[in-house]
Order: sequence, then structure tokens, then C-alpha cells
Amino acid sequence: MNYRMVFLFIGRILVTLAALMLVPLTCAIIYGEALAPYLIPIAICLAIGLIFNIKAPKDRRFLPRDGFVCVGISWIVMSLFGCLPYIISGAIPSFVDAFFESVSGFSTTGASILSDVEALPRGLKLWRCFTQWIGGMGVLVFMMAIMPSADKGGASFTHLMKAEVPGPTVDKVVPRVADTARIMYGIYILLTALEFLFLLAGEMNIYEALCHSASTAGTGGFGIMNDSIASYSTYSQYVIAIFMLLFGTNFNVFFLILTGRFLRAIKCEELWWYLGIVAASVTVITLSVFRFFGAGATLLQGEEAFRLALFQVASIISTTGFSTTDYSIWPILTHVVIITLTFSGACAGCTAGGIKISRLLLLAKNGRREIRYILHPRAVMSVKLEGKKVDHEVIRGTTSFIITYASLFLASTFLVTALDGCDLVTGFTSVATCLNNVGPGLGEVGPAGNFGGFTAISKLLLCLDMLLGRLEIFPILILFSPSTWKRYI
Amino acid sequence: MNYRMVFLFIGRILVTLAALMLVPLTCAIIYGEALAPYLIPIAICLAIGLIFNIKAPKDRRFLPRDGFVCVGISWIVMSLFGCLPYIISGAIPSFVDAFFESVSGFSTTGASILSDVEALPRGLKLWRCFTQWIGGMGVLVFMMAIMPSADKGGASFTHLMKAEVPGPTVDKVVPRVADTARIMYGIYILLTALEFLFLLAGEMNIYEALCHSASTAGTGGFGIMNDSIASYSTYSQYVIAIFMLLFGTNFNVFFLILTGRFLRAIKCEELWWYLGIVAASVTVITLSVFRFFGAGATLLQGEEAFRLALFQVASIISTTGFSTTDYSIWPILTHVVIITLTFSGACAGCTAGGIKISRLLLLAKNGRREIRYILHPRAVMSVKLEGKKVDHEVIRGTTSFIITYASLFLASTFLVTALDGCDLVTGFTSVATCLNNVGPGLGEVGPAGNFGGFTAISKLLLCLDMLLGRLEIFPILILFSPSTWKRYI
Repeated sequence: MNYRMVFLFIGRILVTLAALMLVPLTCAIIYGEALAPYLIPIAICLAIGLIFNIKAPKDRRFLPRDGFVCVGISWIVMSLFGCLPYIISGAIPSFVDAFFESVSGFSTTGASILSDVEALPRGLKLWRCFTQWIGGMGVLVFMMAIMPSADKGGASFTHLMKAEVPGPTVDKVVPRVADTARIMYGIYILLTALEFLFLLAGEMNIYEALCHSASTAGTGGFGIMNDSIASYSTYSQYVIAIFMLLFGTNFNVFFLILTGRFLRAIKCEELWWYLGIVAASVTVITLSVFRFFGAGATLLQGEEAFRLALFQVASIISTTGFSTTDYSIWPILTHVVIITLTFSGACAGCTAGGIKISRLLLLAKNGRREIRYILHPRAVMSVKLEGKKVDHEVIRGTTSFIITYASLFLASTFLVTALDGCDLVTGFTSVATCLNNVGPGLGEVGPAGNFGGFTAISKLLLCLDMLLGRLEIFPILILFSPSTWKRYI
Repeated sequence: MNYRMVFLFIGRILVTLAALMLVPLTCAIIYGEALAPYLIPIAICLAIGLIFNIKAPKDRRFLPRDGFVCVGISWIVMSLFGCLPYIISGAIPSFVDAFFESVSGFSTTGASILSDVEALPRGLKLWRCFTQWIGGMGVLVFMMAIMPSADKGGASFTHLMKAEVPGPTVDKVVPRVADTARIMYGIYILLTALEFLFLLAGEMNIYEALCHSASTAGTGGFGIMNDSIASYSTYSQYVIAIFMLLFGTNFNVFFLILTGRFLRAIKCEELWWYLGIVAASVTVITLSVFRFFGAGATLLQGEEAFRLALFQVASIISTTGFSTTDYSIWPILTHVVIITLTFSGACAGCTAGGIKISRLLLLAKNGRREIRYILHPRAVMSVKLEGKKVDHEVIRGTTSFIITYASLFLASTFLVTALDGCDLVTGFTSVATCLNNVGPGLGEVGPAGNFGGFTAISKLLLCLDMLLGRLEIFPILILFSPSTWKRYI
């Protein structure tokens, strides 16, 4: 590993983080709240960040694995320094709890240890939501978008982007990586601004609209009310549901639409599967919930069932985790659908977590090919996705990914259930919801519960799961390999 | 597909099945029970079997996929005709229930829809256990072992064996497949006889010892008492526990020992992992159960805790499914261990179900290689198992297997839970226990419960899971591919 280059990177991350903390600081100034929780971390981040950046390293080698290591360490460092406002303000005095909340924010999970969110100062609530906005697109991609071109190693940055942007492949919409990063951020900001305006048109004030659009954009799910979105109007619920679905769509589709290539946009295979899964899930849950309302259910309750179903489906498949009801009391069939959506996630190339539909498509197609291969051992068959032949390496990477993912899931469930002695449904869904960056699960961690009841060791394990999920495993896993830490000779 | 060859095969299977039914018929004659439940199926099997074998097909082509198809169809046909004694005797009047019991027998699962096993006539109880003995080693392997050599196509039979013998690869202990089949059966019969004698030395009579050794040998788990093995002596419980572990050991190890190659036998990598997992699980469960007994637990209860732990661990890891206690009341930690063992299964090349330890080893080693591959993209690394380099095709096959396996598991859990509206733990463990051919699960399908409460459609789905598990997916999955049914030109 090239330690100097990694330190340089971490330093820049800390300076960026200090700059981002100006947002909740401004909010605290406006509302006349305590400023120390933001000023102290800003000072610390700036100090350490600048020390790391005093001298440019002579050896500027930056191999693929350095990219992965940088991403892995950066996210841990961000979460560590990002939890300072919670601790300093006294809102979350325990370090483990504050770290959990911070990881949950940056990883866009939205799982919380807080039982009373409304009690937090406004600046802190905004910071919670804003960390999800930062985490959604990724802070390294952000750095790439704003850094001067002269400072870029080209190929190395593709590795950074590969490590931070979800999905089996990075579709470079334009040849230069930095330009791709800028376009992605452009679309991200545009969509966030649109949601902000739509929410403002309803009953929300500027502060509420800002918090909710930041959380939605990152597909995070931190709210500012104890009952998440349940107490907002039907209008706001529909707006948020639709934007959750939009932020779960592959951003390439938006890019193609913005550049006038509608035909290519609507030909996106993943998009149609995504919409199909949403439609099927909403139908099943609407019917199930309508029946659950009982025999005398009216047409008005039909709309309510549809709205509840749409909101929850959009929230889970986009791995946001907002809720408008406690669905843990719904029939078991809806739980089965919700757990399935928790794992599937939405499209690649957006801010959603989970396994991603394109990856599942690739696995299904590869599975079909394997069966055909048994029938016709000598036939030459290729797997196609989005009309293009998929490289053998991508398939191998995807199968390795899914097996590692499943193993980590099982090991975590094993450990959390064994360490905490919680029931199997709570253990199973808490790990599922953290690893897939969703937020709420079932049982004790359902929409009405929180993660405060876990032991410290389980909380740290779930933090690890959230980071593994957000960075798609390898940038975090690589940190556990001793050979990662060897110096270059 | 070469239909004529497949029919020839099925015919022979039916004749073999008729011959095997002479065993419960003899038992019924000895105990003076009704003979019709065996005589009628024997007549039907013989009649259809002989019709299929009247004329030898001219076209004797037998491709790999024909081997898979033969195995898949044979097992369904065996289960269909094997359930006739249950129906004709009136013991299980419902066809779906009888078919479930029959599939559960042949697939060596041991899941039952019966709430009162003791009420069955003795001949039928023996037939239940005997189907597990047949299913353990596989009826096609049996046919191969007894058929005259002239009738064999060589390569084709390797395909049959590949399809029926569990594990990622078929280790041919001797060059000729038919000889391998004979050696395997020889060891199988030897071990069964040994267990029979050991059980006879305890309090069991010939009938009881016969039934239990047949069930143990096939790692099936059908007992003849309502409380499984709980009411037998400590001696019998230890004997059965040890034989369950022996039948979960790769038969190659026994072959090496019998031919005096001790050194090679104890070098078996899978064996050591197997013993390690058993030791670790027994330790954890013993401690957990001992604590569960409460503060005043004595040394005698220590022995009991150890015996309960050893028996249950041996039963689950070998996917037998006998029980000596209702472990659904044990602490959650033991459940987590039990579920893990349900999936792992024991060694390849024996009668146990599950994923198999060698397959998990292969996946773990491949996973480690993949991570190294990210660190050193240009390094050439190979995966070694049992000291030998593993072929790329085997790794690809294993990863495909595990992904298909996981997908089928998830889809089945989804369907069973959604169709039956049972709780998640029941749905999850009933599918896990059927797909892994274990037998008991947790919740409603725990050791004290049974599968009678499921709807007919769920029962059929679980039948499919049992067959998929026993034949390691592809011989059954291939039957759903339209191109399987195309005639050769």
C-alpha cells in the first residue's frame, strides 16, 4: 500500500467533511442553537486534514487495491468524525450509539438507535438527513467531481468509482471518469431540488422539505418525526413515494433522457424489471392490506391500501426505509414480499442499496445458461444484459459477490442472534435491513421499534454490515487482509 | 431425449422396486398382517416394468442429459409407486399425504405428516424405514452394482452416478464405475449390519434394530416410536449417534481404511473439518443446555446435556433427523447452531444431504482467492482441495450449484410462507429441513410437531424440495426445461 497517498486522500476527505458540516452549522445559527457541536468537529477535521496534506508524496503510484483501501478507510473515517456532533451536543452520549447513527446515516441505511427523534435540535436533525445525502452518491465521487483534472490518475479513479458506485459494472456514460462523476452529481442535485420544490408546494416548510428531500435522495430514510412520514399529508406521501422510486432508478436512464435519447432510455432491461417488480409487489400488498381492513372496507380505504402499499414498496425496494405505517402488524404475506424487496434492492447506478436488480438478472441468466450447458455440454452460449454480451470476468465477479454476500449475511445473523439472544425474526431482519441499507426490519426492529436494545458488540457488527452493504463488500473486506497493509517496495 | 432407453430404465426401476417390496411383505407375513398393501403394488410394478422391458430399443444412444433425466424421473416414479402401500393399507388415505411420506422416505428426509407413527402396522413401519435405506445409497447405483457388465455404456453410467451420488465430484475409488458402485454398496451394507448388531446387543429386538439401522444408514430419520429415539436406553442413543456420524463420513475414508491405506484416510481434509464442526457444535450446545438446566445442575445432568447435544448434532449434521428431545424449547443459541448444521450437512460421497462440507470448503477457498485476486490482479492462483488442484469447471459448477440452491430455497420459503400463512420460523425451517433432507425443523415443524398441517400445495412443494435436495438440484430442474423433452433426430 502507498501509505502517503492514502493519507493524502483521507486528509482531503476530512477537509471536505469540515466543509459539509457548514450546512448544519448554518442551520444552528439560523435557529439560534448551540454551535459547539459543529465548530469543534470542523476545527478537528480541518486540523488533521491539513496536516495530512502539508507535503505532496513523491511516490504517486496508486494501484487498484489502493483505490479500494482508500474508499474503505474513508467511509470509516467519515463515520467516526461525523458522529462527533451527536456526542458533543449530548444528544447521543454513548460513542457506540453515536457511531451507529453516523454509519447508518452515511451508508444511507436509516436504522436508528433513537427512540425520540423529535427531541433532537434542528441542526442535528438536518445533519442526520444530510449525511444520507452525502452518502447516497458517495463522497469520493463528489471529490472527483470537484477536484481539478491535473490531480487525477485516470485509471486509478475508475477504481475509486468502481468501489463506491453500486452495481456489477460502472457504465461510463461519457469517456472521462471525472465527467461521469459530474453528470451523476448533476442529476442527483437536480432531482433533489425537484423533490424539495414539490414538497414545499405541500404543507412542509423549507426546513422539513430540505431534510426529507436529502434523506430521500440518498435513499436513506432518516426522518425528523417519530412516526417517520405517517403524519404528513397524502400529497407529501405520494411525492416522497414517487421520488423514492426515481432515486432507485439507474441514473443512466435520466442521462439518456436529458440528452434526448428516449429510445435508448426506455430500452433499459433493468428498468422494466424494476417497474414490473414494483407493480407486482404493490398489487399483492394492496390486495392483502385491503382484505386486512376487513369486510366493510370502502373505496376510500382502497385508496389508503394502495397508498400504504405504494409507499412501503417504494421505500423498501429503493432501500430508503421511510414508513407511513407499522407494517409489522400486516399479514405474513406482505412480510414475505417486504423481505424479498429488502434483498433485491433497486437498479444499479443509483443511490439504492441491496443486491441490485441487474445483478439478480445476471445471475438468473447465468443460471439458465448453466442448465442449458448440462443439456448441451458442447454448445457455446453467452450471457447478454442490456443487449450486450457480458464479460466472463463480470459474471465471475457477480457470482463471487453473491456468495460472499450470502456468507456475510449468514455469519452476521448467526452472531447477532447468538450474541443478543433475540428472536430469529429480529436477528434475521436486523442484519438484512442493515446489510441492504434499508433501515427498518421486522420484530423488535420493525418500523415502530429501533436498534437501541442491541448490545454494543451487535451494534458494531451491524455498523460493519451497513458499510459492507453500502460499499458492496470488497472495499471493507479488503481491510481485513494482512497483505493489504504491506508497503510497496 | 431417447425415450425408449428412458422407458427401459424406468421399467427396470419398477421391477427392482417390486423386488424390494418383498422385504415388508415378508415382515407382514411373519406378523400375520394384511398382505394386500404389498401384493397389489408388487403386481402393478412388475406388470408395468415388464411391459417397458419387452423389447430392447434399437437406438441405444444415452447422452449425459438422458442420465440426468433418468435419475429425475426414476425418483418420482419410485415415490409414486412406493406410496401405494400407505394408501392401500388405509394408513394414509390422502394421496398427497402418502406421496409426501413416500418422497420423504426415499429422499431420506424423514419429515412426516403422521402424528401417530406407532399406530401403523409393523410391515408399513418397516417399509417406511426401508425406503430410507434404499434412498440413502440410491437405487440407480444399486442397479449398476447388480446389473451384468455387458449391459453398461461406461461413460453414461458415470453420468448416472454423478447425478445420484452427492457431492461436487464423484471420486472413482477404482477405475470402473460399476466396481465403485459395488464397493460403495459393500461398505453401506457392512456398516448397516454393524449397527444392527450393536443395537441388538442393547434392549432392541430384531425388528426394532432392523428398522432403526435402516433409517440411520440412509440418514433418513423415520423412527417407529412417536418420540423418535427418546424412549430408548442411553446405550442405544450413543450407538445411533455414533453411527449417524459414521454414515455422514465420506465412504472413501472407509474404503481407504479397509484397503489398509490409513495414512491417506486420515489425511482427508473434509474429514477433519467435519469432526471439527461436530466437536465445536457439541461443545456449544452442551454448555448451553447445561446452563439451561439451571443452577443446581449436577454432573449426571452434565452427561445428559452432552448426550442430548451429541445426539442432536450428529442427527442434524448427518441430516438424519432422529431426536431424543424437543429442542425447540432450548435457548436460541442452540437453534442458530442447529439451523447452520441443517444447511452445512456432512461429507460428500456418503448418504447425508445438505450442501456438503467439501462444497463449502471449495467456496470458502475460492472466495479467499477472489479477494486475493483483487489485491493482485495479475497473480495466477489455483484452488486446492484434498491436496489436489481443483478444476475450473468444478468451481464453476459449485458456484452455480450454490446460487441455484439459494434461489430455490428462497423461492420455496416465499411460496410456502405466503401460501400457508404460517409464521416465518416455521416456513423458513420447514423448507430448510426438506431441501437439506434433515426432517424436523423449528416452530410447528419442530421435533414434537409434524408436517400434517400444511396445505396440499405446500406439501407438494416440499416434496419437490426434498427431491431437489436429494438429487442435488439438476436432475429435477432439468425436467422443467422444454428442450429436455425433444426427441433425438
